[in-house]
Amino acid sequence: MKYYIGVDIGGTNIAVGLVDENGRLLAKKSEPTQVERGCDALMEKTASLCVQLCKEQGKNLDEIQKIGIGVPGTVRCSTGEVMYSCNLPLERVNIADIISDKCRLPVTVLNDADAAAYGEYFVDGNKFESFVCITLGTGIGAGIILNGRIYNGFNGAGAEIGHTTLIKDGILCACGRKGCWEKYASATALIAQTAAAAEANPNSIMAGGKIDGQTAFRAAEKGDKAAERVISEYVEYVAEGLINVVNTFQPNKIVIGGGISKEGEPFISRIREYVYRYDYNRYMDKTIISAASLFNDAGIIGAALY
Amino acid sequence: MKYYIGVDIGGTNIAVGLVDENGRLLAKKSEPTQVERGCDALMEKTASLCVQLCKEQGKNLDEIQKIGIGVPGTVRCSTGEVMYSCNLPLERVNIADIISDKCRLPVTVLNDADAAAYGEYFVDGNKFESFVCITLGTGIGAGIILNGRIYNGFNGAGAEIGHTTLIKDGILCACGRKGCWEKYASATALIAQTAAAAEANPNSIMAGGKIDGQTAFRAAEKGDKAAERVISEYVEYVAEGLINVVNTFQPNKIVIGGGISKEGEPFISRIREYVYRYDYNRYMDKTIISAASLFNDAGIIGAALY
Repeated sequence: MKYYIGVDIGGTNIAVGLVDENGRLLAKKSEPTQVERGCDALMEKTASLCVQLCKEQGKNLDEIQKIGIGVPGTVRCSTGEVMYSCNLPLERVNIADIISDKCRLPVTVLNDADAAAYGEYFVDGNKFESFVCITLGTGIGAGIILNGRIYNGFNGAGAEIGHTTLIKDGILCACGRKGCWEKYASATALIAQTAAAAEANPNSIMAGGKIDGQTAFRAAEKGDKAAERVISEYVEYVAEGLINVVNTFQPNKIVIGGGISKEGEPFISRIREYVYRYDYNRYMDKTIISAASLFNDAGIIGAALY
Repeated sequence: MKYYIGVDIGGTNIAVGLVDENGRLLAKKSEPTQVERGCDALMEKTASLCVQLCKEQGKNLDEIQKIGIGVPGTVRCSTGEVMYSCNLPLERVNIADIISDKCRLPVTVLNDADAAAYGEYFVDGNKFESFVCITLGTGIGAGIILNGRIYNGFNGAGAEIGHTTLIKDGILCACGRKGCWEKYASATALIAQTAAAAEANPNSIMAGGKIDGQTAFRAAEKGDKAAERVISEYVEYVAEGLINVVNTFQPNKIVIGGGISKEGEPFISRIREYVYRYDYNRYMDKTIISAASLFNDAGIIGAALY
């Protein structure tokens, strides 16, 4: 059996996992990213997480085939250089060289959403001609798999579907544009929408407590009207962006990943219904839309195995 | 030399052309589509234009290899059936059978924007891995060529980039959604924007006269302030949608077709500058953006030769 380390560097957490050649995640560790501490600290923490994980799992580093790293941003896969990431302190940094130096292992780097998409595609059985994975997290990541290969354009910077407009001149995005989809449909956006609704509705059960990506879902289940409005608006934001994906790609399948996808079928079915009502496709087979099966581990597994 | 007939059925005009195997358009005829007269009249007119063109060019129908038809909408290419078209009276109509019956020739059918993209790709030298053609016409058509093949999804209904949102809850589109890109950046949209500006600015040289897709461009050249505002807003609408295309596909090249593309470099350079300023790609090679070289003939040539 061959073993790999997969790393998923997110805006919030860094997660590393030990993955076998069949795509099984054997163990996982994570720590807060702490973007404010800068690039060197981030690299140091990433390398030390990899080393600690191996130690804890009783593996020597020389039993590991390679480390695969997924990063939110534009990556030159051939060299391992991160060119630009709007949520991380990495700009023109060759993280493959840095981590390889610290861990004495081969390192590959790819976009985190590409990694997640490949992980989902791998466990889904590699059977679809066109497959899109949308990850609702700190931002929105997207990975496109066409004929078994990651599609990311002639320069590797493509598939940034989170940075397509939902509302021209809308909320300012870290990428410099206004109204990007991720400003409305990421987990971060849901939390902001929930917080705003809690503040505007002091009698809501959302008000007063700690707010996270589950707050509005749990309150809506208890019949909270303001929470239900948050969820239905959020469903619309997610679905409108998905219709754009469907009208553009008409992929065989779209999977929705990230923490929110754990809401499962009650959430996904509302999105699916909205997409099927408004997509441009009449009379033809519809794109399958489902929750990702690996949740937050897709990026680790995909990065490890691609 | 082999000869083909290409047909481009648009919301405004039907154009038919005699095309040789090298992609040269030898002769062309067109007539208003008159969508209000319905499907039968449209099919009758299409067939009779093909017959007339051959007669005028001294060709017998049996010297023609096939008729290729491009239609704005969803097409089942394997059968020649148009499934849905929001601008034409064609819904679940097998136009390949109908025209083949009337003209006694093999008939192929494809989406008009796919046809235009293939025509542009063909004359561009077939050299790019990823190539997108955006046609600004009655609506916005898009064709995606990946590795020399038209990409339109598992069901053939993809590449409807004109029906991705620019402004959620914006102008109602014939497809049933609100705020589709084509409601802001098609030639039809430009004409509506020009008419509104002419009405609001009675001292503008745009006011009082007939308004078409060139009105604002010509008036802006003469220093008309209201016209310049129309053009800069229109450039933004076109460019914002193109950034979505770039961020999604990072294609080697995008060509912009349709009548407005005849404005050429003065128009395209403004769009290019806006796209390059806001696209997500930092430090990587940029997508080439240029005017289509075949203008309105791309659809005829592409439909004839695909």
